[in-house]
Amino acid sequence: MNSFLEKLFAAHQDCSECPSPRAVQDFFSELLGLLFPEFTVKKIEQKAEVEAELDRLEQVLASLLIRNPHLHSGEGKALARDFFQKLEVIFDLINQDIDAMYSGDPAAKSRTEIIRSYPGFFAIAAYRIAHGLHGLGIQLIPRIITEFAHSRTGIDIHPGASIGHHFCIDHGTGVVIGETTIIGNHVKIYQGVTLGALSVKKEDADSKRHPTIGDSVVIYAGATILGGQTHIGENSVVGGNVWLTKSIPPKSKIYYQSRMHEEATGVTDTYIFKK
Amino acid sequence: MNSFLEKLFAAHQDCSECPSPRAVQDFFSELLGLLFPEFTVKKIEQKAEVEAELDRLEQVLASLLIRNPHLHSGEGKALARDFFQKLEVIFDLINQDIDAMYSGDPAAKSRTEIIRSYPGFFAIAAYRIAHGLHGLGIQLIPRIITEFAHSRTGIDIHPGASIGHHFCIDHGTGVVIGETTIIGNHVKIYQGVTLGALSVKKEDADSKRHPTIGDSVVIYAGATILGGQTHIGENSVVGGNVWLTKSIPPKSKIYYQSRMHEEATGVTDTYIFKK
Amino acid sequence: MNSFLEKLFAAHQDCSECPSPRAVQDFFSELLGLLFPEFTVKKIEQKAEVEAELDRLEQVLASLLIRNPHLHSGEGKALARDFFQKLEVIFDLINQDIDAMYSGDPAAKSRTEIIRSYPGFFAIAAYRIAHGLHGLGIQLIPRIITEFAHSRTGIDIHPGASIGHHFCIDHGTGVVIGETTIIGNHVKIYQGVTLGALSVKKEDADSKRHPTIGDSVVIYAGATILGGQTHIGENSVVGGNVWLTKSIPPKSKIYYQSRMHEEATGVTDTYIFKK
Amino acid sequence: MNSFLEKLFAAHQDCSECPSPRAVQDFFSELLGLLFPEFTVKKIEQKAEVEAELDRLEQVLASLLIRNPHLHSGEGKALARDFFQKLEVIFDLINQDIDAMYSGDPAAKSRTEIIRSYPGFFAIAAYRIAHGLHGLGIQLIPRIITEFAHSRTGIDIHPGASIGHHFCIDHGTGVVIGETTIIGNHVKIYQGVTLGALSVKKEDADSKRHPTIGDSVVIYAGATILGGQTHIGENSVVGGNVWLTKSIPPKSKIYYQSRMHEEATGVTDTYIFKK
Amino acid sequence: MNSFLEKLFAAHQDCSECPSPRAVQDFFSELLGLLFPEFTVKKIEQKAEVEAELDRLEQVLASLLIRNPHLHSGEGKALARDFFQKLEVIFDLINQDIDAMYSGDPAAKSRTEIIRSYPGFFAIAAYRIAHGLHGLGIQLIPRIITEFAHSRTGIDIHPGASIGHHFCIDHGTGVVIGETTIIGNHVKIYQGVTLGALSVKKEDADSKRHPTIGDSVVIYAGATILGGQTHIGENSVVGGNVWLTKSIPPKSKIYYQSRMHEEATGVTDTYIFKK
Amino acid sequence: MNSFLEKLFAAHQDCSECPSPRAVQDFFSELLGLLFPEFTVKKIEQKAEVEAELDRLEQVLASLLIRNPHLHSGEGKALARDFFQKLEVIFDLINQDIDAMYSGDPAAKSRTEIIRSYPGFFAIAAYRIAHGLHGLGIQLIPRIITEFAHSRTGIDIHPGASIGHHFCIDHGTGVVIGETTIIGNHVKIYQGVTLGALSVKKEDADSKRHPTIGDSVVIYAGATILGGQTHIGENSVVGGNVWLTKSIPPKSKIYYQSRMHEEATGVTDTYIFKK
Repeated sequence: MNSFLEKLFAAHQDCSECPSPRAVQDFFSELLGLLFPEFTVKKIEQKAEVEAELDRLEQVLASLLIRNPHLHSGEGKALARDFFQKLEVIFDLINQDIDAMYSGDPAAKSRTEIIRSYPGFFAIAAYRIAHGLHGLGIQLIPRIITEFAHSRTGIDIHPGASIGHHFCIDHGTGVVIGETTIIGNHVKIYQGVTLGALSVKKEDADSKRHPTIGDSVVIYAGATILGGQTHIGENSVVGGNVWLTKSIPPKSKIYYQSRMHEEATGVTDTYIFKK
Repeated sequence: MNSFLEKLFAAHQDCSECPSPRAVQDFFSELLGLLFPEFTVKKIEQKAEVEAELDRLEQVLASLLIRNPHLHSGEGKALARDFFQKLEVIFDLINQDIDAMYSGDPAAKSRTEIIRSYPGFFAIAAYRIAHGLHGLGIQLIPRIITEFAHSRTGIDIHPGASIGHHFCIDHGTGVVIGETTIIGNHVKIYQGVTLGALSVKKEDADSKRHPTIGDSVVIYAGATILGGQTHIGENSVVGGNVWLTKSIPPKSKIYYQSRMHEEATGVTDTYIFKK
Repeated sequence: MNSFLEKLFAAHQDCSECPSPRAVQDFFSELLGLLFPEFTVKKIEQKAEVEAELDRLEQVLASLLIRNPHLHSGEGKALARDFFQKLEVIFDLINQDIDAMYSGDPAAKSRTEIIRSYPGFFAIAAYRIAHGLHGLGIQLIPRIITEFAHSRTGIDIHPGASIGHHFCIDHGTGVVIGETTIIGNHVKIYQGVTLGALSVKKEDADSKRHPTIGDSVVIYAGATILGGQTHIGENSVVGGNVWLTKSIPPKSKIYYQSRMHEEATGVTDTYIFKK
Repeated sequence: MNSFLEKLFAAHQDCSECPSPRAVQDFFSELLGLLFPEFTVKKIEQKAEVEAELDRLEQVLASLLIRNPHLHSGEGKALARDFFQKLEVIFDLINQDIDAMYSGDPAAKSRTEIIRSYPGFFAIAAYRIAHGLHGLGIQLIPRIITEFAHSRTGIDIHPGASIGHHFCIDHGTGVVIGETTIIGNHVKIYQGVTLGALSVKKEDADSKRHPTIGDSVVIYAGATILGGQTHIGENSVVGGNVWLTKSIPPKSKIYYQSRMHEEATGVTDTYIFKK
Repeated sequence: MNSFLEKLFAAHQDCSECPSPRAVQDFFSELLGLLFPEFTVKKIEQKAEVEAELDRLEQVLASLLIRNPHLHSGEGKALARDFFQKLEVIFDLINQDIDAMYSGDPAAKSRTEIIRSYPGFFAIAAYRIAHGLHGLGIQLIPRIITEFAHSRTGIDIHPGASIGHHFCIDHGTGVVIGETTIIGNHVKIYQGVTLGALSVKKEDADSKRHPTIGDSVVIYAGATILGGQTHIGENSVVGGNVWLTKSIPPKSKIYYQSRMHEEATGVTDTYIFKK
Repeated sequence: MNSFLEKLFAAHQDCSECPSPRAVQDFFSELLGLLFPEFTVKKIEQKAEVEAELDRLEQVLASLLIRNPHLHSGEGKALARDFFQKLEVIFDLINQDIDAMYSGDPAAKSRTEIIRSYPGFFAIAAYRIAHGLHGLGIQLIPRIITEFAHSRTGIDIHPGASIGHHFCIDHGTGVVIGETTIIGNHVKIYQGVTLGALSVKKEDADSKRHPTIGDSVVIYAGATILGGQTHIGENSVVGGNVWLTKSIPPKSKIYYQSRMHEEATGVTDTYIFKK
């Protein structure tokens, strides 16, 4: 058992303690609470507080980055400033996502309901913030943010994915969106949708491994779309449980059609492809 | 960036702080702990305490409702009383659900194991309580309760759904049951099952958009059943990954049959429909 | 309502308060933090501490077991000793799992990223520890550990399952691995994969109800493999969303092929079976 | 060591777990937060909430009393109702105490400063509430409340003491006010004042053992006044560190006078007693 | 009871929620942890982190000040900057206090023991920080900091007091140091010492009401020194329980001398005043 | 400001993070809860648990000691074993202290009230445990335990003091008992009593600096007894606020007598010394 003790001791010596997932989650939670007071424990009451809180959170992020110089190539303070300068754009994008979720779900009674009780909102907000950090070349921290959302919602979006405005995820459990996915505007996806890779070889790490989804595409529950060369043309509809590894042109509708005749002994299940 | 500060400040002014998801979760957790002492931090030791605790929780709910008059049309105290008067019925229903989960899972070693470690139990108990509140016309609060369970279990049941007795969910991650779903008695469903809508238009909010499942139906993992006019007849079995948007008569068995011949170059995968 | 009060009071009298899920989770979290300092709140600084911490956690487990004599047939102290004697083996297995996850995912930038942000890591580590306890005949405690991981990751592995070395789960939400599953070495599975039972009759509790997966098999997202007699031969690939209740020989590739011709009015979706 | 194990086991079997000091402190803290929103975590926003919160806290108290029938002779629900019916009187008294503390301390800048940062406020508020419970014959619970305040402030007031309106304690660390003390209106005392007993014999438990302080008396830091027959006449001033076991008439001033003459080689320090 | 509900509702409407004592304590605790890592939960590992943490805490303070504009006349950001510019001076002063406590207590085994387990250290550090904020004209916040320390240590130092370097408090419970006290360098005081006011009239709020203590004075346990015109000359020693309301010249020793003769029937207790 | 950053960085590099006061307090709290279930969160239900818990806590202590080798000269495991072997003696002593507190306070209604709400109990229990550790040559850890109790109760007992059985502290705020104090059996002391040193020179660290108190002595509130050569003879009574730096023989009664004659213009306050 001696070697076991040695191994454990070595592991503890080697372990860089940072970034603590807890510290990252706290930063994310406080930022989310500033942007969406439905999540805050500290509602703002003076106009000047808004800027003060933004400044404070910028310092929190700077502190986190400086603590972990191995996670980025830039200078912590400058990176934090850069992130906060693009925060308004991120905020506007998340609000457009809320609009998309509200108008697309008959069960939603109010915007507040979306913010307070929709896992899709939480996961997309986490992604938008993580993506902003990822875009500055910061490693691991954005991943911890999206994984925090994954753990809470079952929705797994890689911070490297590129997603247009008015994005909507309904229910969402089981959604996976890979690192090199490109998603257009006004796209809507349902629970269990995978936008994944065909290749999982380490040497393909730098290539585009995940699909491209055009504007205004709807992808129903359980559909799987794989491969970096797979393009779903704009305005297409991908039916539930469909499995796709090839591109489809714009305005395609691809789904299972269950034809059931009274006399039938068997029901043929087919994809119907309409242009 | 000035307009950004204005926007954030306005958001904080507009934000009604209530109901805080935390307050709702606390109410739910305390109630669950009273009904199922496996969850309590305060085991009851005097007979008279049971009534005192019910009274206390009734006041907690009344307090929550009075705090949020925009969420209901009735009078808070009266609504709370109404809810607690039907609590015994809810309790009995959850116990029948436990019976169904216990007798339907060979891996379950005891009722205690169901209560302590089955996500299906947690999600159904949350639904039963939330549904009771929803039936009194209370908004958002039931939704926060079911979303709390969704986040913990990956099982997403809308409080508006109508579900008969002896309901059983096994494993459950990814289950979605929509707002206007009607489920009969003795139904069992597995992980990844969606009972969803075909239409997601806002103007259809008041119509029946989700399916009706007859008594004693079993729906296997990953099956998707969509549409307000889709009826699954009683005693039917819906196989795994099946995709259904049309009704099927009672006692149907609808599943994939994988026929594999040694000489086959391809295996046709078909639904076999048997009456 | 009188009988309701009686029922609740009786439930509280009957409820054995232990093992509290909280106590079990604390044990698991502290053990995980000792094995993987990325999770610890108490990094080890003296070599002699490693052994002291192992001793301490052994006593924590012993204490938990002695508190709950109905959960095992052995003697608490001895069982705890047995578990800690095989802990090194468990540790080595988890490290091999990390290796498998790292080399199999182009998006993974470091081993630390796996440990800190991959749900697959968390779920497998929980399973390996729970399986060690389960192998000593301890009930409920291992189940609470795997359900804790299930709740955090959406990955549901029964502690009774038997899983070889270099196991890899990617994304993972919705994965279900049943009690009598046997999985070989170097197996990789994706989100939404079910390794389940065909029979859910209580009287089959003692039989093998879940499939056997050979070495080096890959199972893609959403695939469902059912039945105790279903063997997936070594080096096979099971495609996404495939539904299998029959065995397949080694080196099989079974998947959907979407053929799309410009002139086609329908696309036949078939399994292609290649030996 | 065997007998030690037996002793500890017996202690755990005999220990009535209630009332948990934690539960009592929570009740007190929530009540204080309702009366003085400076302490609340849940500011009231609807008028109807006030009554709902009072009702809820009445049930919390009822629940606590019913849980511990050995601590009172009455019926839990009725006692809780009685307490809440006199709560307004208690509230008014505490507000008069605040007035007294504010007008008596030049350093106090606002009533809010008194409530937020004066230990005297906290200790007196705890005493007033505990005294109300004590007056209903409830045991131990009021004691836990005053001891909670003692631990936070260093001010130890027995809930059985009788204290008039406009009571003021400044600084307060080390103040002790015994069980049978009677204090008039407009009394002010400083840190380190003891109003104690001469006799500490168990058989004197039912007699008056602590002093009586008349209206408008001021008692300076460190003074000690002992004995059930010791009366401090109204409008008297008791100087710092004075030690008194006999009564003094109204309008007495009893203090140390330090006479220092330039030529003196020694300063005689005497009590000067003036009628 | 109606008017009671009205009163409570009004109280909740009037209550400015800020500054929450909790937010102030958190700021103080984090700052203390940065200055004295013995208190931190986040030990610094990169040199650049020190500055980042100082920046971050400056923003935390700015945020707190901006949130509460009624507590200061300046501009929040500028005040926060001013405070952090004098922080080094404060830090050096606290370190000199530690030196004084270490060299003055034979029981102290190390500087670490002072920092980790001496209430005097905690109270003085809180005072030094609070005094820095008080000097910038900030209200209430410094008071909450010193009261936090008072509650933990029983030592009550008003942030307005002026205290020289190398200050030492031993044990400390019951110490009170009033708002206009002036204390020289190298002063040492023991538990229960009061440096208080003779006048407690509101109209004297702006005058000097508390004593002046010269350099290198020692004041033993329980001594009480009162009045704004009372000067304790440098290098004096004030004995335990001494009560002083007049000035004494430098190098005085004023104490009780207990003369006990074998034949004495009584012991006269006198102050002996030596120049 | 550069040098300030350097200083802070150096402080963080030098700071040995251990023993964390938190870890020490947790050990103490768990041990206290095992000895006195009134404090536990984990009531023991199986006889065999008692031993298991003792074993577990022994490992916790061993772990703490091994983590901090600079705090003791022995071997961590062996020291922990030694401590737990004398725990029964400590337990018996604390129970005798409870007996003394119960029989000496007419206001005490039960032993449970002593344990749950008497600061004297808490401080003495902490001292007894700390003294046991101190006796094994362990540094700092016992000091953190007694300081934890000091912070909660205002009672400051150095772990090095030697205190006989049936010790009683009433109220207690402000009590100070120095490192080399020796207290006999059946001693009772009140709030504000100091048993202190005359010399505070570092070079006297190894000499006896604090008084010796004989059996069955009672010391009333605010008395101060100083000096290593000061012996209070057995069965003596030391009155409130008395200041003593000389020894007194057995059966002495030393107190202030306030003689008040109607005709008196002044009251001479004297010590009356009776043998």
